[in-house]
Amino acid sequence: MPAPEPFIWHTRIRFVDTDATGRIHYSALFRHVETAEDEFFRMLGRPYFATEHNGLSYPRVHVEADYRLPLLYDSEISIRVRPTRIGSKSYTLFFEVMLDSQVAATATLIIACMSKATQKSHPIPDALREALTPYAV
Amino acid sequence: MPAPEPFIWHTRIRFVDTDATGRIHYSALFRHVETAEDEFFRMLGRPYFATEHNGLSYPRVHVEADYRLPLLYDSEISIRVRPTRIGSKSYTLFFEVMLDSQVAATATLIIACMSKATQKSHPIPDALREALTPYAV
Amino acid sequence: MPAPEPFIWHTRIRFVDTDATGRIHYSALFRHVETAEDEFFRMLGRPYFATEHNGLSYPRVHVEADYRLPLLYDSEISIRVRPTRIGSKSYTLFFEVMLDSQVAATATLIIACMSKATQKSHPIPDALREALTPYAV
Amino acid sequence: MPAPEPFIWHTRIRFVDTDATGRIHYSALFRHVETAEDEFFRMLGRPYFATEHNGLSYPRVHVEADYRLPLLYDSEISIRVRPTRIGSKSYTLFFEVMLDSQVAATATLIIACMSKATQKSHPIPDALREALTPYAV
Repeated sequence: MPAPEPFIWHTRIRFVDTDATGRIHYSALFRHVETAEDEFFRMLGRPYFATEHNGLSYPRVHVEADYRLPLLYDSEISIRVRPTRIGSKSYTLFFEVMLDSQVAATATLIIACMSKATQKSHPIPDALREALTPYAV
Repeated sequence: MPAPEPFIWHTRIRFVDTDATGRIHYSALFRHVETAEDEFFRMLGRPYFATEHNGLSYPRVHVEADYRLPLLYDSEISIRVRPTRIGSKSYTLFFEVMLDSQVAATATLIIACMSKATQKSHPIPDALREALTPYAV
Repeated sequence: MPAPEPFIWHTRIRFVDTDATGRIHYSALFRHVETAEDEFFRMLGRPYFATEHNGLSYPRVHVEADYRLPLLYDSEISIRVRPTRIGSKSYTLFFEVMLDSQVAATATLIIACMSKATQKSHPIPDALREALTPYAV
Repeated sequence: MPAPEPFIWHTRIRFVDTDATGRIHYSALFRHVETAEDEFFRMLGRPYFATEHNGLSYPRVHVEADYRLPLLYDSEISIRVRPTRIGSKSYTLFFEVMLDSQVAATATLIIACMSKATQKSHPIPDALREALTPYAV
């Protein structure tokens, strides 16, 4: 089976994202990353939302970002989302924020699967693993 | 009984609050207003947190703010909080944001009391009304 | 000349917009309102961005919002933007946030035109007035 | 010379910091980290604010955070700030977010020194290096 098209979310830097340097405030990047993540999972059909998985939640246990190029108000960005690791109880998403054809920033989220009842880590549901795997490149 | 001292919360404008104009982004004022509100209710003993009121929530139904003076990164501000109306099922809080001795901004929140069970408005608990009343001037 | 089509921006409530009540935090609505405003002005060709107007800025002097229906994570919203007043030195934008076919929230921004050099109010440029007028209904 | 007392900033998780899980949204931690950083530099006398350094800025080039314990609305936190690396053109700040006597989260910021004129990296001013060094443990 051929690899699917990479998932890319297109958006812009908003005024509220900027700070007094005239550039994006570093924390605002995470709002755009979250939107890209959200739309990536919508495209996948939100496999972790099935009824039998209602007892699970997905806290972020580690996040990081690197800033290479200044992002200014109204900069048009494209965010490529892909899983780079699918472990037994957590997985890693990697985001490339493109400005024109350059990587302006990257971000990485490590997301655990947790049982709400026990507040302990829990195996990733098969449906989620299967949905993510083709994009893990 | 003499009126109590006005409640005033002291803080500063942070870098994340600013935007590319170099001033506070208008939406960031509401974070400071919320902190002032939160500390005002802590000082009152959080009367609405008693067990018998667990079924109530307090959504904001109207908010507004006026911006008179520019607030810059690191500006030291004082926020005076006071109730200006205590109705049967909602009340109004008014905030004056002082910079030196001038009013730099004001904000108003109208907060309803709602039953979580019915999602409909509910009378304000007596304990909350009694706690707010001395500050309503 | 017939009135133009109303400008409507489509988006969704994001996770970062929510708070521990499970609903949108009231301040997060202003981020969506700002994006709608931004895209409205893009559609108009950003008339205030012309070189001869570089000395002007547009601070918000008053903002307000009313919250009628709960907005939840992933709620699909449509924001209609229109000017409701175009004064000599300020104008008013009104936003209706629609959820399905109901008004879930409204917001109003009063935006002044200011000279950066004098920090005083300044007449709205003709190009901006002319761009806004057909939408002022 | 004995090491100085560690710098610790005391604050609380605010309602706007939470999301629909009832816990802090991961991005909100960075607002508190920034405030702690800001107050750390105030305590140091803001050595990088001297007139001769006006041409420099300090963009974050890498940020990361780990989340170990849930932080809830109103959780009282203490943030310890310390430099863990002072390089020639960048330095690293490390933040421990304590809840009671446990580490609830950590964050790391790598901050570059940049010339505004050239937009290229620039040696850290001596005054900044000297102010940071005693805290680098």
